[in-house]
Amino acid sequence: MKKKLIIDVDTGVDDAMAIMVALANPDVEILGITCCHGNTPLENVLKNTLRVLKVCDRLDIPVYRGCSKPLLARKQHAGDYHGKDGLGDVPDPDAPGLDLLQKKNAVQAMIKLVKDNAGEVILVATAPLTNLAVAVQLDPSLPKKLKALYIMGGNTESRGNTTVCGEFNFVADPEAAYIVLDRYTCPTYMATWEFTCRNSLPWSFCDTWLAESTLKADFMKKISSLSRMKEITAGTGFNSCDVYALAAAIDDTLITESEEVAVAVELEGTYTRGMMVVDYIQKLKKDHKAIIMKKVDLEKLKQMLTNALK
Amino acid sequence: MKKKLIIDVDTGVDDAMAIMVALANPDVEILGITCCHGNTPLENVLKNTLRVLKVCDRLDIPVYRGCSKPLLARKQHAGDYHGKDGLGDVPDPDAPGLDLLQKKNAVQAMIKLVKDNAGEVILVATAPLTNLAVAVQLDPSLPKKLKALYIMGGNTESRGNTTVCGEFNFVADPEAAYIVLDRYTCPTYMATWEFTCRNSLPWSFCDTWLAESTLKADFMKKISSLSRMKEITAGTGFNSCDVYALAAAIDDTLITESEEVAVAVELEGTYTRGMMVVDYIQKLKKDHKAIIMKKVDLEKLKQMLTNALK
Amino acid sequence: MKKKLIIDVDTGVDDAMAIMVALANPDVEILGITCCHGNTPLENVLKNTLRVLKVCDRLDIPVYRGCSKPLLARKQHAGDYHGKDGLGDVPDPDAPGLDLLQKKNAVQAMIKLVKDNAGEVILVATAPLTNLAVAVQLDPSLPKKLKALYIMGGNTESRGNTTVCGEFNFVADPEAAYIVLDRYTCPTYMATWEFTCRNSLPWSFCDTWLAESTLKADFMKKISSLSRMKEITAGTGFNSCDVYALAAAIDDTLITESEEVAVAVELEGTYTRGMMVVDYIQKLKKDHKAIIMKKVDLEKLKQMLTNALK
Amino acid sequence: MKKKLIIDVDTGVDDAMAIMVALANPDVEILGITCCHGNTPLENVLKNTLRVLKVCDRLDIPVYRGCSKPLLARKQHAGDYHGKDGLGDVPDPDAPGLDLLQKKNAVQAMIKLVKDNAGEVILVATAPLTNLAVAVQLDPSLPKKLKALYIMGGNTESRGNTTVCGEFNFVADPEAAYIVLDRYTCPTYMATWEFTCRNSLPWSFCDTWLAESTLKADFMKKISSLSRMKEITAGTGFNSCDVYALAAAIDDTLITESEEVAVAVELEGTYTRGMMVVDYIQKLKKDHKAIIMKKVDLEKLKQMLTNALK
Ligand SMILES: [Ca+2]
Ligand SMILES: [Ca+2]
Ligand SMILES: [Ca+2]
Ligand SMILES: [Ca+2]
Repeated sequence: MKKKLIIDVDTGVDDAMAIMVALANPDVEILGITCCHGNTPLENVLKNTLRVLKVCDRLDIPVYRGCSKPLLARKQHAGDYHGKDGLGDVPDPDAPGLDLLQKKNAVQAMIKLVKDNAGEVILVATAPLTNLAVAVQLDPSLPKKLKALYIMGGNTESRGNTTVCGEFNFVADPEAAYIVLDRYTCPTYMATWEFTCRNSLPWSFCDTWLAESTLKADFMKKISSLSRMKEITAGTGFNSCDVYALAAAIDDTLITESEEVAVAVELEGTYTRGMMVVDYIQKLKKDHKAIIMKKVDLEKLKQMLTNALK
Repeated sequence: MKKKLIIDVDTGVDDAMAIMVALANPDVEILGITCCHGNTPLENVLKNTLRVLKVCDRLDIPVYRGCSKPLLARKQHAGDYHGKDGLGDVPDPDAPGLDLLQKKNAVQAMIKLVKDNAGEVILVATAPLTNLAVAVQLDPSLPKKLKALYIMGGNTESRGNTTVCGEFNFVADPEAAYIVLDRYTCPTYMATWEFTCRNSLPWSFCDTWLAESTLKADFMKKISSLSRMKEITAGTGFNSCDVYALAAAIDDTLITESEEVAVAVELEGTYTRGMMVVDYIQKLKKDHKAIIMKKVDLEKLKQMLTNALK
Repeated sequence: MKKKLIIDVDTGVDDAMAIMVALANPDVEILGITCCHGNTPLENVLKNTLRVLKVCDRLDIPVYRGCSKPLLARKQHAGDYHGKDGLGDVPDPDAPGLDLLQKKNAVQAMIKLVKDNAGEVILVATAPLTNLAVAVQLDPSLPKKLKALYIMGGNTESRGNTTVCGEFNFVADPEAAYIVLDRYTCPTYMATWEFTCRNSLPWSFCDTWLAESTLKADFMKKISSLSRMKEITAGTGFNSCDVYALAAAIDDTLITESEEVAVAVELEGTYTRGMMVVDYIQKLKKDHKAIIMKKVDLEKLKQMLTNALK
Repeated sequence: MKKKLIIDVDTGVDDAMAIMVALANPDVEILGITCCHGNTPLENVLKNTLRVLKVCDRLDIPVYRGCSKPLLARKQHAGDYHGKDGLGDVPDPDAPGLDLLQKKNAVQAMIKLVKDNAGEVILVATAPLTNLAVAVQLDPSLPKKLKALYIMGGNTESRGNTTVCGEFNFVADPEAAYIVLDRYTCPTYMATWEFTCRNSLPWSFCDTWLAESTLKADFMKKISSLSRMKEITAGTGFNSCDVYALAAAIDDTLITESEEVAVAVELEGTYTRGMMVVDYIQKLKKDHKAIIMKKVDLEKLKQMLTNALK
């Protein structure tokens, strides 16, 4: 049986890669893509998601409009990294129109799809967790109907990429992150910022990867040009954060080391608001533990990325 | 044309009175009653609401199941005041069953009812504001389709009834209160804790009022027995908080004095979490102002209460 | 026996009036004046205090240099109200030099003076409470050696004058205010912002008062010119905040109504940091209660002010 | 010239070791030992410090009484680790009496000693930072007169030992830690919790070390028995936290790897209050950077410990 996925995105460059990795895998069925504010305003996220599906000739996959704002925080976009339009500022004049979107709201769609496929859906979240937080508020039974939840977000050692101690997806909606880590008691796998940084791919792979002469490779080369330049300057290797969460969700053998720890999200700190708190000394008195990814099989990851552009 | 109301309740004794006041007014049409956690767990709120409608012979009014938990806070019930079942601990063996509830969720019903009656609906909220917060997150266009919003909740002078500085409905879900005061930019009328305390009715009225020999008066006498005893001890007069918000919503002339001020909700304080912040010195830089009730025409209020038990 | 006072000031216009009221009273002995940052930087506070003493021909009173910064907060001055120099921007070319200051630090002087006059000293604080907080940290036995503490600061109904909910002296060093209200378990009298506003003097009195042709009246007229103009515009009457605390300290019959309540200071709020929390519903579980002034005998206050300029 | 040290302690077992390491070094002159609340109540800290000096026959070194409480937090002792008396619960019937203490307060002594030896004093702080915070508040010029400051405290990767994310010395007085990291702009070296954990000594060394048949070794064996048992169970190696700060202060070559980063302390978090914040991405806009120790020359450390018990 195919793995049934719902992907919750704020399409960005790495969300795009994640979607393409999923589409390339014959054993994966994408039940729907739910869109959330994040890297770029929701309207761009919707457009970008449709552009990715078009390049992959898979506009049959339903795309849903979700939350345009975080629960409390002001909107905060990562525009300088992913480009103003969230996808490298290389517009496509023939981009598909938003009339292709589903009528149902992303949150309601998520609830219905999970209910109709109870016990089978893997939810992969590569955006701020607003949609997931609203969904569990509307339907508290949602988490126990999920097979698993994979999240790109949070951090483990107080290294921030957006605030001193905070990772973008969590800082963009800390309350949503708190709610999700508190109420999604299904198996929960976390690809945190430190994890993705430590498992980045060498730039040499990236060069080879993008050198393929396929439509998909062309597209990826174009949309990632801006962010690659920034990362090369930063010298941290090729770190496509969202891909780790997606890849782990579709291949159980990808993660070679992980640890189970209770986690929470700091909501009140001056410096630490949005920081993920990892409870190594059992102070939170939480039964549910998250599975925090530590190491990845890089060769398998490379293969998945390579397949994605074929 | 009749006034179209949606009432969002956590039925409680004073919510019950508010519903009965609304039902007694021939110029009011109740489009639906949406239920929220609060005074008592959601299951009780649902049962209590149906019991009130049964006593009034109005089980035709649709009742919806809403949020069972606040966005972040732990559940907090006012059970010692309203009784363990939220309605004075005088169970009805013939209470209507929950099969009478609508299938649609309260939040979705609220969105749909407001959409179908755009510009005409007055939303009266006498519970923690969780349902309203989730609704605006799902449909950001909801507030501008409302005619007005009436809220029982918050405080103006840092006098708490639940925490040192916090009123019950706001403390029970501070994030929801924050979201509602931030995003519901429709005309917003506030019946705060200090306002209701200062406009309480004399106990002598209460005695006369409950002495009527009608089914409704019997019901009210029974369910309010516990809370009246507590209030008499406290010596503060008969303060049926939720009734003020409802009564103001159905009679524009009830409020004889009010002020327009920008407001917000404190989310982070040790002592003040959930406290309503009133911006008398224009520091919040907020355009939207709430209309804070100051004085009520007590004779009119008495008449409305009297009618409610006839 | 004379009343022995230590006055802790951030001389401003109303601190100046308070000092002059004290000097005019034959039954008061000022053991020392300790200076603190506040309305204006500490260097100005020191200069201003000496100027007041010079006008009153009382440079024999020891003046001490205290804390130049709040414990944690950034410096915050009320310069637009009291003038840039804290005393109405009417410099005195013959102002006494800072060489007249005592060598001992204000905090150490406070500890020593109280120790040497155990049980007899009334401490009047009309500035941010930094000096008092550091003193109790150095000598935890200080409060129980005091006869009484009079504070101008805080608020009772969340009406701020500096932030939405915060009064200047408390907001200028919230941690110090918290420490003082927590550890000074001696009789503690509070002249809060709301209290001073509600007991302001009519402008007509102020005109008569300043019309005296004495050196002191001339001085007061000059230094208060700027702030009087601002207050007249604001329309709130003549409110010389610090004078209430001082006057209450030297005449036990001045305050005609007060209430005893436990109080604390909010340290963490977004809107409420520095707000005084008044525990009307016994949630703080605090034994020690502050005496909050409610009403003042205005005729007595006028007489004291009049005497001060003679 | 000898290195002039002031050691600020809350003598526990590892403070005792640190003092003994300092005493054993012929190139070190201890100007004074200032005592602070912390591992155990201040009275115990004072007694324990004198006991250590007595075993080393150095009761000539002045010991000062400092702050008995943190600035704001409730007292919090590490009694279960260091024993109820802070020194392994092996009382000495002939312990020296508190009459041997200096009359001057620790904070004032610190200010005077640093002033009298301007530019020469290395301050080593192995306790909550309350004394240092009060000192800089009393004398803002203190830090620039120091040669260097060595601190055992804080954490770098949000690993707590007392709260989820907080190290004991910082959590015991977060405001003091904040003030010290903010205002001590002298060279500041940090031995953090993660650093000491990663540079612990093998238990085999510890066995040999304590097997010496000297009075000092006997003393150390006795007082450390309780904590060694706990650590062995925890399996983390022999980690005498305070010794790292002291040893680094007296031998510049001990630390073989370190990094300079701006740091701060979180004061408001629910989970993170007291956590040290390390600014790897330059969000704090702070000029002053702390020098965070990363690796230690273990052989040198062993030698210093060995010398200490000779
Ligand atoms: Ca993303
Ligand atoms: Ca209610
Ligand atoms: Ca003042
Ligand atoms: Ca220590």
